[in-house]
Amino acid sequence: MPVLVMKFGGTSVANLDRIRRVAKRIGVEVAKGYDVIVIVSAMSGRTNELVGWVNEIAPLYDAREYDSVVSSGENVTAGLMALTLQQMDVPARSWQGWQVPLRTNSAHSAARIEEIPTDNINAKFAEGMRVAVVAGFQGVSPEGRITTLGRGGSDTTAVAFAAAFEAERCDIYTDVDGVYTTDPRIASKARKMDRIAFEEMLELSSLGAKVLQTRSVELAMRYNVKLRVLSSFEEPSDDAGTLVCAEEEIMESNVVSGIAYSRDEAKMTLISVADRPGIAAAIFGPLSEAGVNVDMIVQNISEDGRTDMTFSCPTEQVKRAEKALQDAAERGEINYHDLVADTDVAKVSAVGIGMRSQSGVAAQMFRTLRDEGVNIKVISTSEIKISVLIDRKYMELAVHALHDAFGLDKAA
Amino acid sequence: MPVLVMKFGGTSVANLDRIRRVAKRIGVEVAKGYDVIVIVSAMSGRTNELVGWVNEIAPLYDAREYDSVVSSGENVTAGLMALTLQQMDVPARSWQGWQVPLRTNSAHSAARIEEIPTDNINAKFAEGMRVAVVAGFQGVSPEGRITTLGRGGSDTTAVAFAAAFEAERCDIYTDVDGVYTTDPRIASKARKMDRIAFEEMLELSSLGAKVLQTRSVELAMRYNVKLRVLSSFEEPSDDAGTLVCAEEEIMESNVVSGIAYSRDEAKMTLISVADRPGIAAAIFGPLSEAGVNVDMIVQNISEDGRTDMTFSCPTEQVKRAEKALQDAAERGEINYHDLVADTDVAKVSAVGIGMRSQSGVAAQMFRTLRDEGVNIKVISTSEIKISVLIDRKYMELAVHALHDAFGLDKAA
Repeated sequence: MPVLVMKFGGTSVANLDRIRRVAKRIGVEVAKGYDVIVIVSAMSGRTNELVGWVNEIAPLYDAREYDSVVSSGENVTAGLMALTLQQMDVPARSWQGWQVPLRTNSAHSAARIEEIPTDNINAKFAEGMRVAVVAGFQGVSPEGRITTLGRGGSDTTAVAFAAAFEAERCDIYTDVDGVYTTDPRIASKARKMDRIAFEEMLELSSLGAKVLQTRSVELAMRYNVKLRVLSSFEEPSDDAGTLVCAEEEIMESNVVSGIAYSRDEAKMTLISVADRPGIAAAIFGPLSEAGVNVDMIVQNISEDGRTDMTFSCPTEQVKRAEKALQDAAERGEINYHDLVADTDVAKVSAVGIGMRSQSGVAAQMFRTLRDEGVNIKVISTSEIKISVLIDRKYMELAVHALHDAFGLDKAA
Repeated sequence: MPVLVMKFGGTSVANLDRIRRVAKRIGVEVAKGYDVIVIVSAMSGRTNELVGWVNEIAPLYDAREYDSVVSSGENVTAGLMALTLQQMDVPARSWQGWQVPLRTNSAHSAARIEEIPTDNINAKFAEGMRVAVVAGFQGVSPEGRITTLGRGGSDTTAVAFAAAFEAERCDIYTDVDGVYTTDPRIASKARKMDRIAFEEMLELSSLGAKVLQTRSVELAMRYNVKLRVLSSFEEPSDDAGTLVCAEEEIMESNVVSGIAYSRDEAKMTLISVADRPGIAAAIFGPLSEAGVNVDMIVQNISEDGRTDMTFSCPTEQVKRAEKALQDAAERGEINYHDLVADTDVAKVSAVGIGMRSQSGVAAQMFRTLRDEGVNIKVISTSEIKISVLIDRKYMELAVHALHDAFGLDKAA
């Protein structure tokens, strides 16, 4: 029988009523003839509670114990979901990560999936079981300890199962009904997309759209897993939600597909750095070693052999970045006058695979922001996206203006 | 290094403050030079919440899923305890049941322990780890599924580890400071015992004293594990609590060591049963098959070939007993006029290994109850205990009177 993977997030399984509702949804797919693999998150709030306890006990915790504690919420949901399905006469059982076993490396709290053997679950499908309920977010290390895949890791679990079992599709049920051209809470004209290319989804995810974990999109792209994002709170139909798929499966598309934003970016400026060959390596090497995710970089024009260097990184990494640069200065590797962190900024991005073949997108973006009086602090581009760092107070204005300018309220 | 097993119940680890307090207690034993195996329960209330959810979803639940769900609470405590110990610079790590692995049979929700390999944990002790924190109450079946040992099963986990690791002692920390001659909530003159024999503790546990799970005492007796029951809420000393040990290690003892009671017993009477050879087997066979735990049995004098048969069983099994007997009657295996259940009764028992060598204990018990005007409905005896079923309203009175009559307020 064809296999379907369905993933339900924390709000979709927040209590027993919602678990029953989700179970009915699963029953519909079983009735259509699918063998179903269900990936569940912890009931909403549970993981935060567990994480809170761990942080209260040990701010610098042993990640192996952290993983063992925080993975427990998913086990509860998996068992309750299997029981609910059985109660509806749907043959089901639960699997914890180590029972599959979903093998990962030993990078606790951010583990990478290495292997998902299919024999255990397929043997049960062959015996007549119709639904395998798998606890998301967790796996087991070569040392036999529980690992977790990072926050939002259940999305990645779902895609990995879809790839391993060659599923027809991987449906990600969440609390929004699909992927929008921008955040509907900011722009009421935001429009749900029927389809979006993997590459675009990947950019949108990493730029702040919180619909899917970035790694899950990477994985779906690599294994060509058809991903569908849809709401667990609406009556489902066959064309519900947004299909994330290969570019070739999208007939027409706008040049720009979506506008993303992030408030979690900070602008850091190193003032008066000695400008010499290798200075960029001397600055960004230590930052990389300290685990700082530098996004945008701008080097000012040099004057008298000195220059200002500006970069952006997640707000939560500002302290770490400051320490890494101070340490580098103490070791004599770099030399600067001052380091200024500005956290009152936001990043706004336009994303679209159409940019590859159409020029003038950047120019239109800059013109639109200029017309609104928004000053651009830093710019970065990739093949299919343009991002700008602006004052945070202009963020909503910029999102509105760009959404209109690129005609995103109208279907392609 | 000598091994000590310490077990902490749900109220002892109810929140992070209590977990810290318990961790300090563990640190004291580590400082004395012990390698410590700590068995933890779920934080109090957690297991009941999980059990409640399972029952709400599926009153006739799949015990394999039940076990998978309800075992999660212990995993959380184990991880939090390991983190707390690490924070105090005590080298520690947690183990879930399947990681040890604590192997059980496949009797889900009431599994029996089959094997506890010591190599994994001993290897870590050899590397310098000082505390192994083990999630209590759980194990893994031959099929690789999670099993649980029944309510109170963490006591049994603790004793099994003490046996497997040949521990010097197994300390059971709970919310009472030892084993009493009777329940101090009923008789203020109740006295804490310094020592009690395994056989006596076994009778007291199975007769309703809720200090230790009965199976844990059986196991301690079989492997001669020294068990100590003590409070986690008091400053510990070397002679704190009550030591449960072999009879030979107790110098002097009262003839009767303790008075136990249970309100959870019902009296069932089959009225006018045909009295023929094999009738007892015809009645108690079906009850046994239905899982009814029959305790006391009385057969009245036969008249005109018919008799009344009275027995007691746990109150919660009354419905099951009625159904088993009705089914047997429908199959024509037995024939009775009526079946009357009386749940307004209580069982009061006197226990003591001294009874073996001293006669007249039963007579003194009956005389004491007669003097108080308490009517005895059913009697049962074993080598070291006498139990009577009486009207529930006389229960406290009977406990008081017997406690006085056997001089239990005075040390032996």
